Amino acid sequence: MTEQRTHHITLVTGGCRSGKSRYALQQAAAGKRPVFVATAEARDSEMKVRIARHRLERDPAFTTVEAPYDLAGDLRALPPDTDVALVDCLTVWMSNLLCRPETTDASPPEVEALLAILHDPPCDIILVANEVGMGIVPDNALARRFRDEAGFLNQSIAALADTVVFVVSGIPTVIKPQPTGSA
Amino acid sequence: MTEQRTHHITLVTGGCRSGKSRYALQQAAAGKRPVFVATAEARDSEMKVRIARHRLERDPAFTTVEAPYDLAGDLRALPPDTDVALVDCLTVWMSNLLCRPETTDASPPEVEALLAILHDPPCDIILVANEVGMGIVPDNALARRFRDEAGFLNQSIAALADTVVFVVSGIPTVIKPQPTGSA
Amino acid sequence: MTEQRTHHITLVTGGCRSGKSRYALQQAAAGKRPVFVATAEARDSEMKVRIARHRLERDPAFTTVEAPYDLAGDLRALPPDTDVALVDCLTVWMSNLLCRPETTDASPPEVEALLAILHDPPCDIILVANEVGMGIVPDNALARRFRDEAGFLNQSIAALADTVVFVVSGIPTVIKPQPTGSA
Repeated sequence: MTEQRTHHITLVTGGCRSGKSRYALQQAAAGKRPVFVATAEARDSEMKVRIARHRLERDPAFTTVEAPYDLAGDLRALPPDTDVALVDCLTVWMSNLLCRPETTDASPPEVEALLAILHDPPCDIILVANEVGMGIVPDNALARRFRDEAGFLNQSIAALADTVVFVVSGIPTVIKPQPTGSA
Repeated sequence: MTEQRTHHITLVTGGCRSGKSRYALQQAAAGKRPVFVATAEARDSEMKVRIARHRLERDPAFTTVEAPYDLAGDLRALPPDTDVALVDCLTVWMSNLLCRPETTDASPPEVEALLAILHDPPCDIILVANEVGMGIVPDNALARRFRDEAGFLNQSIAALADTVVFVVSGIPTVIKPQPTGSA
Repeated sequence: MTEQRTHHITLVTGGCRSGKSRYALQQAAAGKRPVFVATAEARDSEMKVRIARHRLERDPAFTTVEAPYDLAGDLRALPPDTDVALVDCLTVWMSNLLCRPETTDASPPEVEALLAILHDPPCDIILVANEVGMGIVPDNALARRFRDEAGFLNQSIAALADTVVFVVSGIPTVIKPQPTGSA
């Protein structure tokens, strides 16, 4: 199902605090001009602390771009010499999209736009996502919708990706392509 | 530990919206006379929407049977020419069993009956289950009990199954039998 | 990254009711003088039931030691002829540490002490942990902090461990070291 394209797409997924961002940063740091595409908005003090900590952990070689909503547009606008962009993370991005006052029941149009640009991206792209569907069904409807949309997005990106890595307790396992010899 | 039996048992497990049902449907669609064994009851409008969407996604070759409680009995009553039955899903079934007014602290008797029939099932069986134990401990006691029983059921079925597949972000990984060369 | 040391460290991780303790017990039961290091405190009746059930499931060869807080100290104080200690589990231990009235925002000092002793442990150590970060973001701040600290602890232990096993539906998969032939 993976298409012929010039650049490589990697999805790194796992739970909260699984080490997925750290792993993705190590992969992206191999680039000469890596860009960190941050989807989080510093809306409260807890988020500010997380964002600040992530910034400190990051190799200074990274340029940072903020992309809380129009991720496709922001990827298209990257400096032309960018060789790898690390999007961290898709799940926070989905949360931004669904928490807007104008949100409808339809899938946010920005998702379609992202999938379109990933068919022929301007550089290598590493996307980080959270697995959020392995707990108990949440009580409130918005959380259930978020869980659905985040899961569907992960599936769409994984289907497009050349490489999918599942990180558990800091240990990465490549689940696509499957290792030779496995069923 | 896997027994000698005529038919193949597969467990497909993963988080909510992980693509596990889609994967299981693809596997079952290889059958000539596949039956979809639906455990969900359309008790509210949200469930009705989910059920309707799943029906639309399904290959028309599938006959549908509803089995919200007596799953073993409903499997025994399948048309004799059924070659593969897809049970979707065990976790909703467990929720049905535990949410009955007559529920006691004991494991529901229907579980024992299911395990019994799976020792020598009438056709190939593919069972879909949810992983629900990788979040925070839930606040309420019923949710904790559900999480326990769903987990124990998954373990029992996986122990019986010939094949167990763990689906993450739409990507299936066979975890039983283990790929050759792994520890 | 794994250091040269005399004894083997194994991390067994997975969801609640995934069969991780059972798997760890089987591994530890191969020892001649296995010690079960219990971190849970029987603070309420539900916990008492869980603890009692686990005790019943355990091979009588195990000696039991309780280590709800000073895990490093309790490991150092094991009988000198202990060949394998099974710590069950790290996540309950973290919960004990964070729920003390004197808890601050800093990582509990007992964590540093545990990591220190694991650099050269007195016997083989098998540690059981829970994956708690694959559900929806919890509403309350303490649960989020717990999720963070439990995740960081799992990463630290996995980085030190010789072997890391991820258990899903009772099926163990070795994720460290990676099977030969995988990417």
